[in-house]
Amino acid sequence: MQDIKEVLEMYSNSIYSEIKSALSTISPDELKEASIHLTDAGGKMLRPTLTILSCKAVGGDESDAIKSAAAIELIHTFSLIHDDIMDKDDIRRGKPAVHKVWGEPVAILAGDTLFSKAFQLVINAKSDVGSSQYANDTLATVADACVKICEGQAWDMGFEGNFEVKEEEYLDMIFKKTAALLATATKAGAIMGKGSEEEIAMMYDYGRFIGLAFQIRDDYLDLVSDEESLGKPVGSDIVEGKMTLIVVNALEKASADDKNKLIAILENDNSSPSDVDTALNIFEKYGSLEYSNNLAKEYVNNAKELLDLLPDSDYKNALKLIADYVLDRKK
Amino acid sequence: MQDIKEVLEMYSNSIYSEIKSALSTISPDELKEASIHLTDAGGKMLRPTLTILSCKAVGGDESDAIKSAAAIELIHTFSLIHDDIMDKDDIRRGKPAVHKVWGEPVAILAGDTLFSKAFQLVINAKSDVGSSQYANDTLATVADACVKICEGQAWDMGFEGNFEVKEEEYLDMIFKKTAALLATATKAGAIMGKGSEEEIAMMYDYGRFIGLAFQIRDDYLDLVSDEESLGKPVGSDIVEGKMTLIVVNALEKASADDKNKLIAILENDNSSPSDVDTALNIFEKYGSLEYSNNLAKEYVNNAKELLDLLPDSDYKNALKLIADYVLDRKK
Repeated sequence: MQDIKEVLEMYSNSIYSEIKSALSTISPDELKEASIHLTDAGGKMLRPTLTILSCKAVGGDESDAIKSAAAIELIHTFSLIHDDIMDKDDIRRGKPAVHKVWGEPVAILAGDTLFSKAFQLVINAKSDVGSSQYANDTLATVADACVKICEGQAWDMGFEGNFEVKEEEYLDMIFKKTAALLATATKAGAIMGKGSEEEIAMMYDYGRFIGLAFQIRDDYLDLVSDEESLGKPVGSDIVEGKMTLIVVNALEKASADDKNKLIAILENDNSSPSDVDTALNIFEKYGSLEYSNNLAKEYVNNAKELLDLLPDSDYKNALKLIADYVLDRKK
Repeated sequence: MQDIKEVLEMYSNSIYSEIKSALSTISPDELKEASIHLTDAGGKMLRPTLTILSCKAVGGDESDAIKSAAAIELIHTFSLIHDDIMDKDDIRRGKPAVHKVWGEPVAILAGDTLFSKAFQLVINAKSDVGSSQYANDTLATVADACVKICEGQAWDMGFEGNFEVKEEEYLDMIFKKTAALLATATKAGAIMGKGSEEEIAMMYDYGRFIGLAFQIRDDYLDLVSDEESLGKPVGSDIVEGKMTLIVVNALEKASADDKNKLIAILENDNSSPSDVDTALNIFEKYGSLEYSNNLAKEYVNNAKELLDLLPDSDYKNALKLIADYVLDRKK
């Protein structure tokens, strides 16, 4: 397991099969097609891969975790479908979003169906591990993550146009919206692999740090990467006025003048490339890009350190590789 | 427990408290308010009442079933919120629908939040009954119902403008969309009350028959009741072109002429009172109103007969009263 690419592909076939199997009985056809659309469009399957690796890293088998892994990917997909409706995003994974192809009503239902199917999968996992107890604990974690995803999205929507958001509030939002599900993915793997209480708690924190770093790094790349890697112009977050850690940090530190300048650019839906440059200069002036990147690095280091609780194994190494990947990826 | 009104109110306070408690920790406030809106607007709480009665009828206590009961009401509420968005219905329980007050994005999230909270409640019920096994079985039934609700709504939406729908397809649709959750309510109560396998299966069927009868009776009343009881003009289903058992039956039996006449009225969004009368005459000509009402009666009788498996108790009587209520209510 030398290579991040290999790591991310190791389980993708079995995860995909498990998902296809779970969704195969959906009717009518329109609902089934809408439900499977994003899975077929292809995703990294990062979360379910983390679930299986976490399971194996505490001594379990892939078969103990495969249903929970698939369930977590379905939760992720459900949130993408509903988010795209709410945010009016037309493209996802290079394909039209579900609501663009089938309309909003079917897209709402497709999300709801995936959500239900996810819970069915975890419930059925009890037969793979011989007891309801593990499935029940995983279910509790999954249900908790689902509440947090909803709350996080609501907080994120509520932050629009609010330029007084503090770092603590922002980090809490991305924990709920993004990191909680990653933490759930790794915790679920540790539960289904029958890890110790300590290992289970540690895997949750590993996932949480990875998740926070992932989002912060995502927003950092939007400003410092290139158009080819991003698949969209550099600085599109600035044009959209998106609240990111970089923005929160700059607004907290900036002079009144610079703050007003930045707010005007963020509020302007038609910011020019020159406006984007101005915003970038403000971010650099106050060290906000560096601050954010350093925080992401700190979180990734925390994640890797936590893994030292585990016995050495290829799976532990793979989890460290994924932690590095969160920082190293260009997009 | 002489009186249906008393029966329906017996547990409403504790159900309401359980729901309020479960939703009390939601943030931000906007999401919390949107999530609690329909519960505060008031509903009959029929499904959770059935859950508790079913639990007690097999020898359990209210405390064994209260969380599952509240969870099922949350599932019902989630489906109402999403259905109102999909069907573009502005009023629910005499108040503006959630999406009219808070917008569609928050309404989608409120539904998703209630859905998550429902699963959390059932998972937490394990501590009330001493084992995960019962909660797990209830969860499986609830998750299955949720998939069916989504499928049923998708089938219903797909039936619009389709005048070749057969009775079997129609009944399958209302089973999924409406009756499955009622069947889940009663089955969950029997599970949490530690009923026998036979009692649990029977309670599912009791709920299924009640659910089917409820929907068929609902559609029958739309045509034969009065405006005051309905809270809307008689025959609004005809004006909307809604697919009901009455319509399906009439279309199956009618002459080509009458079928075309009926279809034209159903397709016309601006049907006049005179059109509604024409449609009613066609329904009467082919005995479709009587057919539907008789089927509802048959289902209710089946439901009541199934209850004879249970030992006599006030709760068994209450379940029979509810079965009668499904037929006797004027709306």
